Amino acid sequence: MSHNSFGHLFRVTTWGESHGPALGCVVDGCPPGIPLTAEDVQVWLDQRRPGQGKFVTQRQEPDAVKILSGVFQDEKTTKEFGGQVTTGTPISMVIENVDQRSRDYGEIATQFRPGHADYTYFAKYGVRDYRGGGRASARETAARVAAGAVARKILAGVVIRGAVVQIGPHAVDRERFDWDQRTQNPFWCPDAAMVPIWEEHLETVRKAGSSTGAIVEVEALGVPAGWGAPVYGKLDAELAGALMSINASKGVEIGAGFASAAFSGEENADEMRMGNDGPLFLSNSAGGILGGISSGQPVVARVAFKPTSSILSLRRSIDETGQEIDLRTKGRHDPCVGLRAVPVVEAMTACVLADAFLRHRAQTGGGAFSPGDPKRR
Amino acid sequence: MSHNSFGHLFRVTTWGESHGPALGCVVDGCPPGIPLTAEDVQVWLDQRRPGQGKFVTQRQEPDAVKILSGVFQDEKTTKEFGGQVTTGTPISMVIENVDQRSRDYGEIATQFRPGHADYTYFAKYGVRDYRGGGRASARETAARVAAGAVARKILAGVVIRGAVVQIGPHAVDRERFDWDQRTQNPFWCPDAAMVPIWEEHLETVRKAGSSTGAIVEVEALGVPAGWGAPVYGKLDAELAGALMSINASKGVEIGAGFASAAFSGEENADEMRMGNDGPLFLSNSAGGILGGISSGQPVVARVAFKPTSSILSLRRSIDETGQEIDLRTKGRHDPCVGLRAVPVVEAMTACVLADAFLRHRAQTGGGAFSPGDPKRR
Amino acid sequence: MSHNSFGHLFRVTTWGESHGPALGCVVDGCPPGIPLTAEDVQVWLDQRRPGQGKFVTQRQEPDAVKILSGVFQDEKTTKEFGGQVTTGTPISMVIENVDQRSRDYGEIATQFRPGHADYTYFAKYGVRDYRGGGRASARETAARVAAGAVARKILAGVVIRGAVVQIGPHAVDRERFDWDQRTQNPFWCPDAAMVPIWEEHLETVRKAGSSTGAIVEVEALGVPAGWGAPVYGKLDAELAGALMSINASKGVEIGAGFASAAFSGEENADEMRMGNDGPLFLSNSAGGILGGISSGQPVVARVAFKPTSSILSLRRSIDETGQEIDLRTKGRHDPCVGLRAVPVVEAMTACVLADAFLRHRAQTGGGAFSPGDPKRR
Amino acid sequence: MSHNSFGHLFRVTTWGESHGPALGCVVDGCPPGIPLTAEDVQVWLDQRRPGQGKFVTQRQEPDAVKILSGVFQDEKTTKEFGGQVTTGTPISMVIENVDQRSRDYGEIATQFRPGHADYTYFAKYGVRDYRGGGRASARETAARVAAGAVARKILAGVVIRGAVVQIGPHAVDRERFDWDQRTQNPFWCPDAAMVPIWEEHLETVRKAGSSTGAIVEVEALGVPAGWGAPVYGKLDAELAGALMSINASKGVEIGAGFASAAFSGEENADEMRMGNDGPLFLSNSAGGILGGISSGQPVVARVAFKPTSSILSLRRSIDETGQEIDLRTKGRHDPCVGLRAVPVVEAMTACVLADAFLRHRAQTGGGAFSPGDPKRR
Repeated sequence: MSHNSFGHLFRVTTWGESHGPALGCVVDGCPPGIPLTAEDVQVWLDQRRPGQGKFVTQRQEPDAVKILSGVFQDEKTTKEFGGQVTTGTPISMVIENVDQRSRDYGEIATQFRPGHADYTYFAKYGVRDYRGGGRASARETAARVAAGAVARKILAGVVIRGAVVQIGPHAVDRERFDWDQRTQNPFWCPDAAMVPIWEEHLETVRKAGSSTGAIVEVEALGVPAGWGAPVYGKLDAELAGALMSINASKGVEIGAGFASAAFSGEENADEMRMGNDGPLFLSNSAGGILGGISSGQPVVARVAFKPTSSILSLRRSIDETGQEIDLRTKGRHDPCVGLRAVPVVEAMTACVLADAFLRHRAQTGGGAFSPGDPKRR
Repeated sequence: MSHNSFGHLFRVTTWGESHGPALGCVVDGCPPGIPLTAEDVQVWLDQRRPGQGKFVTQRQEPDAVKILSGVFQDEKTTKEFGGQVTTGTPISMVIENVDQRSRDYGEIATQFRPGHADYTYFAKYGVRDYRGGGRASARETAARVAAGAVARKILAGVVIRGAVVQIGPHAVDRERFDWDQRTQNPFWCPDAAMVPIWEEHLETVRKAGSSTGAIVEVEALGVPAGWGAPVYGKLDAELAGALMSINASKGVEIGAGFASAAFSGEENADEMRMGNDGPLFLSNSAGGILGGISSGQPVVARVAFKPTSSILSLRRSIDETGQEIDLRTKGRHDPCVGLRAVPVVEAMTACVLADAFLRHRAQTGGGAFSPGDPKRR
Repeated sequence: MSHNSFGHLFRVTTWGESHGPALGCVVDGCPPGIPLTAEDVQVWLDQRRPGQGKFVTQRQEPDAVKILSGVFQDEKTTKEFGGQVTTGTPISMVIENVDQRSRDYGEIATQFRPGHADYTYFAKYGVRDYRGGGRASARETAARVAAGAVARKILAGVVIRGAVVQIGPHAVDRERFDWDQRTQNPFWCPDAAMVPIWEEHLETVRKAGSSTGAIVEVEALGVPAGWGAPVYGKLDAELAGALMSINASKGVEIGAGFASAAFSGEENADEMRMGNDGPLFLSNSAGGILGGISSGQPVVARVAFKPTSSILSLRRSIDETGQEIDLRTKGRHDPCVGLRAVPVVEAMTACVLADAFLRHRAQTGGGAFSPGDPKRR
Repeated sequence: MSHNSFGHLFRVTTWGESHGPALGCVVDGCPPGIPLTAEDVQVWLDQRRPGQGKFVTQRQEPDAVKILSGVFQDEKTTKEFGGQVTTGTPISMVIENVDQRSRDYGEIATQFRPGHADYTYFAKYGVRDYRGGGRASARETAARVAAGAVARKILAGVVIRGAVVQIGPHAVDRERFDWDQRTQNPFWCPDAAMVPIWEEHLETVRKAGSSTGAIVEVEALGVPAGWGAPVYGKLDAELAGALMSINASKGVEIGAGFASAAFSGEENADEMRMGNDGPLFLSNSAGGILGGISSGQPVVARVAFKPTSSILSLRRSIDETGQEIDLRTKGRHDPCVGLRAVPVVEAMTACVLADAFLRHRAQTGGGAFSPGDPKRR
């Protein structure tokens, strides 16, 4: 229910403002006996960390996570599990804000930056922490990535990987799509030939003090059939809500997504054959989800990110007193927020899947029925 | 939490299978003292009802709703409110299934129709009510429309209207977009010039025993600034989850949506000026939502629907025993489910907004701060 | 969240007013493949049914339940499960109101009966269905009993049984406590020697047009160790909330309960020894719950019920206009609501335990660790 | 839903183990614009703090709270609200554990202390942080008190106060009950004549290495009519769940509670007259709640606490290997946990009421109807 929590059984609550002393999350409902150290979390945070290139914000944050509860290590856990493990109680993780640069916020304190949440927070709450965007800052996504790291630990056997598939008007060529490429460039780009084009586009945008949008694709391999549920608990509905909650997200699609509007029925309905290990699908327009329940195929989603709202060109706006103003957003910003969104999209997908796994296990005991096999396994 | 409920304070629970005795919903959390009769609900159900043209399923269902609880009428309510009103207790609504045509379900009982939820329900539950798709049938959406009718009653001053903006490859021309047109044709089409093109396309599809996808657009006018909330309670996140939960939905976008990936920052960030009644936005790329909170502009969303999965061409599949089969889906079906989705998209939008209104009122007392005005109003 | 739902994974939503057309419930989250027929539910409803003796209300209600969704029967289910089974989708159950006797509600429509919810519903909602108490009527508990019947089906191996242990000032003698006795008399009394005393007390009360309170005890045998959870999900906290939600309930205690306030530490902390099948406790002051988690001992709770608020003696009150009045509550009523509460207390206990079972299975996979045994089983 | 959260709109999530680095809570849903500083919270924590007398644990913890998010202060808030205020975003509060005394936990690591949660945590999770009771430690209640401090800020006009009304077999005399007395002695005792009796009793218990139970009473003055809701959202049901979730709680009663089982209908149903400011009740057996909704009278509840489970006498138990053992619980402990429970009972009551207030405002807009007054106010 609460505005700053998500998930049902794998339940994540995040807190913290951009320029407050710290931010963090509490993960409740994690199964016990799962090996988990701060290092396991840090590795994912390091992927999201700002300050790693000229196309991302220059704010320098170590984003060092501390785990304050919910884990334990003694002789017995070391012997049985190899070290520190979860205990089943809430896992509290904290990341200190280090580089929040105190300065005079005089103008920003009362002005509404176009495209930002400044005006809507003012309208709703009256009071707002305007420093760096406060709660609406993308820094909040660090807490999501930390939670996602825990979720991944639960999802043994599931691989979750994301890539940027479009920046500005430049979409990758699906024929050249190669997952191995995405770590070979600073753009999470799976199409090697697209890298120089994006680089040039981003350089142009950056120099112009402008910004550009992007589309991120994520897939989860190894999700067994049976996760998710009718009707409002559909796996795709949960994913859509989770991915749309990421800062700057403006659209979510599953499988063929919006393209399926132009499909014929024959193109849409993935045919099936019987494989050695169960059903085989001959295509995946469905994106691995039918009727809200996973089919055993890869779960595929895409998320559209709008351009960074902070740009250097002079923009018309108003302030808290109702005065019309012209403003320019200075500061340290990414020209393309989509670039740093990949670890966040992966993390949210991991959290939704971990939650779906626990919910499925609750109602059915886990596992799935397979054609020709009378037993759940 | 539960799989068949949605909303937090305006909470809807639906139940029922396609060929069971009835289907319905329970709406909990409705404010008291709101005029509500079965007729108020029926008017919306009639818009969704099948059997109204050659491009929708020929199943004949009166979809007559009965309200079993949560409303009351006596002399006092008649005098004060003009008739029957809500009492604040749960509103139970029931719609009987009339035309479920008993027949032999021999083959469908064990076969998995491609694109349907047959296989995933089998994998998850083992047991399934295969008659007409059971719980996965689009008949369930009647209950959503009933709930949406109640939501609309709460949203005095808010207009929610939907239109089909694309069928198959044929998108409406935004220059010719005219909301008044949508009720002048059987396709909810806001572009009069597109009507004959869609008609021909649908006729071709229908004759071929095939099907086609569609995109539905919905907008809500009159939503005041301040509804929604950070971070996981974002209004767009709630909308995305709700709209993606509709049968056959494969994508949701807000405002400029996926197109914003190709935008520059200047195109994206809507500028503001001061109007007589508060802030004015000079564009609406944001779709009326900033930082998850409504801005006072029209809330705009689009939903992609895949083609109807039931088609007449022979398709490869398997059955519960693991045998490979070739099957053809007979029966009464819509060639384009998107056509009947408009009232459902509207209803889900209404439910999400009613819920957001109540949540906003809970935390803040309601109303919004307006620039230059020190008081919430 | 919603006011008329309870449970987390085994989720029950009830609806209906005393004199409306019907009442019912929707049970969401039930595991699939569980044999369930209307008869399985009816047997418990028959225990709660009014009109069965001179000490309970004379309203004649057959309380015949219909299951409208969530179950399925075909050749396969008959062969595998012996008949109709749950499918994992929401189970909607409806009970029609038959004997609601239309009459003139002139006075009761505006008067507040002392001890009833008349005034508080008025204060909260303004509008209320005053006929027979509306939503606040004990008729609502029929829906709880129906849900409890489903919960019992999930709890294979768990026996839940309740008894009345005090009526008015007359408490049963624990030395004579015999569970077999409770079905041998119309009072659910486990102490045969107490039966004539209660009979006389109730006769006196009834003749005086007065009423009397009662205490109901419930125990659940066969609950394995491990159900429940820290901190706000404690099994005893969930039980307390569920049992306190029953009409006329004024107190709940677990194990030794209020008596433990007078205990010494030695009397309180149940000692343990090792039995053949796991730990043995040498006493059960804890009532089967330690730290919010079941210990494997019988779960024991008691619920205090106030006297029926409707009495024949003239009472001082006010009406909706603020006028002071003297009123007498006529109508068909139980002199001791506690008598009919036993099946309701059992049902709520069953629902809480079914929910705890599913939640435990979600987080841990189910089962428990046993001393000396390194594996969960 | 989550095990370590409670409340619906005023939502509290707590985390932390007794001997971990820290404990804390996140409060989500707090209205904006409410003055709140760490000092406002500290004042209540200081009341709960251990190390304040010979009858409470000698563990020395400063329990200094830090607020990490959700509040803001600048020139404008100082001018409008007098200083730092809530912003409507989640309030994260942290309390460091200082005096957790590292030592050898050799035996306690594998032994189950009778009356403690050692065995049940082991059975459920396999792994447990046994140091000082881990998550089951009463230290967790510090986080509740911090959350309660925020709740009190929301409840302007409501006074919440608790007292100990029984220790061991010694109950206060209701004739001598004087709220002003409770701060004049170290026992929260409202009956001055009882103080020496309790002192002697506690001294005897302490010297014997034993412990004793207690009953705490709480009342909330100034709660307006209309808070709470049918049926499972009853105010008393919410209170019962919240109060039973406190460590060592074994019973909860509302108003006359268990005593009402022995009442006649005349004693039970509180009569009403009309006062100058609305309805007057001539008694308060109901404890301020009718049909789950507040009546405007004082809300009254009592909670039974069992004796501290840690005692010095040798007790029979078992260990993780299934060996039978005799053990003695050493360490720093309260002979009567009930003594330190008063601030916790108050805090939980405050949280439940703040939540009820927000829920009431959501559904109805707030306020109540008053007899003779056609408008909600």
